[in-house]
Amino acid sequence: MIAITDHAHRIRTGAVSAVHTVQQTLEAFRQRDAAYHTATRLLDERALKAAADVDARIARGEPVGPLAGVPFGVKDLFDLAGLVTTAGSVVLKDQPPAAQDAEVVRRLCAAGAIPVATLNMDEFAYGFATENAHYGTTKNPHDTACLAGGSSGGSAAAVAAGLLPLTLGSDTNGSIRVPASLCGVWGLRPTQGVLPLDGVYPFAASLDVVGPFTRTSADLACAFEALSGENSAIVQDVSGLKIGRLDGWFAQDLDPDLVAGVSRLLAACADVRSVTLPDVARARAASFVITAAEGGALHSGRLRTQPMAYDPATRDRLIAGALLPSLPVIQAQRLRAWFRDVLHETFRDVDILVAPATPGVAPRLDQPTITLGGRQVSARANLGLFTQPLSLAGMPVVAAPLAPAPGKPVGLPLGVQLIAAPGREATLLAFAQTMEKAGLLGFPSASADVSKQA
Amino acid sequence: MIAITDHAHRIRTGAVSAVHTVQQTLEAFRQRDAAYHTATRLLDERALKAAADVDARIARGEPVGPLAGVPFGVKDLFDLAGLVTTAGSVVLKDQPPAAQDAEVVRRLCAAGAIPVATLNMDEFAYGFATENAHYGTTKNPHDTACLAGGSSGGSAAAVAAGLLPLTLGSDTNGSIRVPASLCGVWGLRPTQGVLPLDGVYPFAASLDVVGPFTRTSADLACAFEALSGENSAIVQDVSGLKIGRLDGWFAQDLDPDLVAGVSRLLAACADVRSVTLPDVARARAASFVITAAEGGALHSGRLRTQPMAYDPATRDRLIAGALLPSLPVIQAQRLRAWFRDVLHETFRDVDILVAPATPGVAPRLDQPTITLGGRQVSARANLGLFTQPLSLAGMPVVAAPLAPAPGKPVGLPLGVQLIAAPGREATLLAFAQTMEKAGLLGFPSASADVSKQA
Repeated sequence: MIAITDHAHRIRTGAVSAVHTVQQTLEAFRQRDAAYHTATRLLDERALKAAADVDARIARGEPVGPLAGVPFGVKDLFDLAGLVTTAGSVVLKDQPPAAQDAEVVRRLCAAGAIPVATLNMDEFAYGFATENAHYGTTKNPHDTACLAGGSSGGSAAAVAAGLLPLTLGSDTNGSIRVPASLCGVWGLRPTQGVLPLDGVYPFAASLDVVGPFTRTSADLACAFEALSGENSAIVQDVSGLKIGRLDGWFAQDLDPDLVAGVSRLLAACADVRSVTLPDVARARAASFVITAAEGGALHSGRLRTQPMAYDPATRDRLIAGALLPSLPVIQAQRLRAWFRDVLHETFRDVDILVAPATPGVAPRLDQPTITLGGRQVSARANLGLFTQPLSLAGMPVVAAPLAPAPGKPVGLPLGVQLIAAPGREATLLAFAQTMEKAGLLGFPSASADVSKQA
Repeated sequence: MIAITDHAHRIRTGAVSAVHTVQQTLEAFRQRDAAYHTATRLLDERALKAAADVDARIARGEPVGPLAGVPFGVKDLFDLAGLVTTAGSVVLKDQPPAAQDAEVVRRLCAAGAIPVATLNMDEFAYGFATENAHYGTTKNPHDTACLAGGSSGGSAAAVAAGLLPLTLGSDTNGSIRVPASLCGVWGLRPTQGVLPLDGVYPFAASLDVVGPFTRTSADLACAFEALSGENSAIVQDVSGLKIGRLDGWFAQDLDPDLVAGVSRLLAACADVRSVTLPDVARARAASFVITAAEGGALHSGRLRTQPMAYDPATRDRLIAGALLPSLPVIQAQRLRAWFRDVLHETFRDVDILVAPATPGVAPRLDQPTITLGGRQVSARANLGLFTQPLSLAGMPVVAAPLAPAPGKPVGLPLGVQLIAAPGREATLLAFAQTMEKAGLLGFPSASADVSKQA
């Protein structure tokens, strides 16, 4: 696996050209993506032009950014100049093309990275499955009979498949953390408000956050630095951090391998305690209610005029949301303010909270359900049971793949959430990198990555 | 008129005792408040005990605070230990008494001030009139045939009547600024979030702010310093400030004397420009919708079980609010975020915005209406047309009485709003003090103040 900074270094030093890298990436999508269905559009013309520009700058001895020539992909709700932003729908397909790139795309491009593909998602980001009635279902690169998770499933799976070293997704209720977990890659939901949403098609505006997926925690830190301008790549000493293991709500219905993996991880930490958050079920319910109301309000006009153009699974939830009375919404908003205060208070005593990202491994495509409290429930609606309550509070969360258990056959990936107080991404990323170096976090790619084949 | 700091100085130096001051204040309420009906309860026992304590500390040479012995009153929605907080209702009258003072009351008491009265308000703060079906209507001390404005009408009128030098009110849509304006006193709606709301009965939680009323701008600065801990009493040079006069929405239906007064004020400023905010009518509508929904949600339980215990004017609005669908509420919240951004942007080019606080002088009790666009509309519901849009943005606003026109008979008071960017209270208070010294702001008390009679 080649770190994105090494990748950029090889291009900068002429060991490989940006054009070659982009060509190889596009070729890999054409050859291998039929199995996964991560991409919805390949951006040959733009990508090859940008790559040629990078190569020309290097040839002329001009400075190029830290991510020079690194190919990346974006969930299909980020504006790319000249393309229609579909947000996974056909409802928007006759909209005018975007006039300019989304701000976070612009920042990655300014660092030298090159967008090569738009990536599949649940329609309007409303789901945890990346089952899209218009654009198909994205498959898990570790087992194509399984879901990749969603709604940023294309972004997670493209990284897991080794097709791209860096992708962008969005996370309203867990749409970065759930697919990162099921696909065994790293994802970051930054502190709410830290990254701009300009040029990102909204879902539930008061919860929406954008963030990166990568293959390693070091890459995640690089990506966040390029996106935010914050220097989070310096690995601080994490040995003194106080770690809280979330129990109660976050300990239900867990895969025994996940429990064992979390215990292995925490055995490496000096100061670990159990933390019980109050009223997590209500916090999750509040996330559902706020999401439904805000999503429904956003689509209320179009739902009246062209309801049948929506993905049925999305349409019904949006209509229900648009018809909600205000009372539960206001109550959910009040609960949200209270729950955020509770978490702020919790972070006076601990530095990092650890919780599962999903209860277990990726559900099968032919049985897209999970078992909660002994009942089979829809994976599309429920995979976020551990991610939703944390969205409500706006805290930064790293989705980290657990390392496979030593001495056992490697199964499907399992992931945890590492949560910190607002603005403490650097702490999370330092902890992540330390634990990945120790072999406790990080999951092998499903196949050799494109740059390695070069 | 005696500044509250001079007042405290006289007590500190033994020129007058705190007990005498409090006795005199209580006596004045008993003799004169029947005409105004500002107080709902007098706190003889607590006030005299606190005053005796201040006098004893002074006698022992112990330090006392900057507001030592200054009597103050609170709108009847601030918790006072041992009293039931009524919020102007009878619905709450069987609730247990408050266990402790509201945090802002505690801060004033820590500075040495002494609470002597609870003050009248619209029920649950829902109105701009201080017409209370249970506790009566507060009258304007400048003309008792006129409204004091609301909902903090008792707090404004007690200061205008010279009964108290300092009171606390709350402002959701204009409930400090409207009565301050109609009563010719100073009021401050601080930046949202700067002062704690602990122990304050809520109305619409996302808009609620608490703040002081005083007779002078210097007192307002002292009061804000005691409440916030911020040193806002130092008067900075204001000659270079860029002033924006809000036109458009804020120039409709104005009393010609108000227009003339604002022009006199702005003629004293070097750098004045007109500023037009977009979509102010929609911003005001958003305030109405958010207030109704949040207020309605807060009362939804009690409205089901004891609707007839509510003031009819309040009940109908709360029921309507509780039954709102979520769609307009979410749309109002989105508009709010946008409008706040617009105001932030505006404050890149100007330091202070000036707008009328109300369209004209206090309406008469026997005709509680105002004329908008040629139509008579309810004063109780509409006096906040210029204050509501600014609440939405959370900016600090000083309600400042215009000085009477020189050479003309003194009529009823007229007030303006001085608005700044978040956290810029010191700028507003410096501007206010400079303009009061210049004779352009500040209105005479309706009668000699209690401390002057001492």
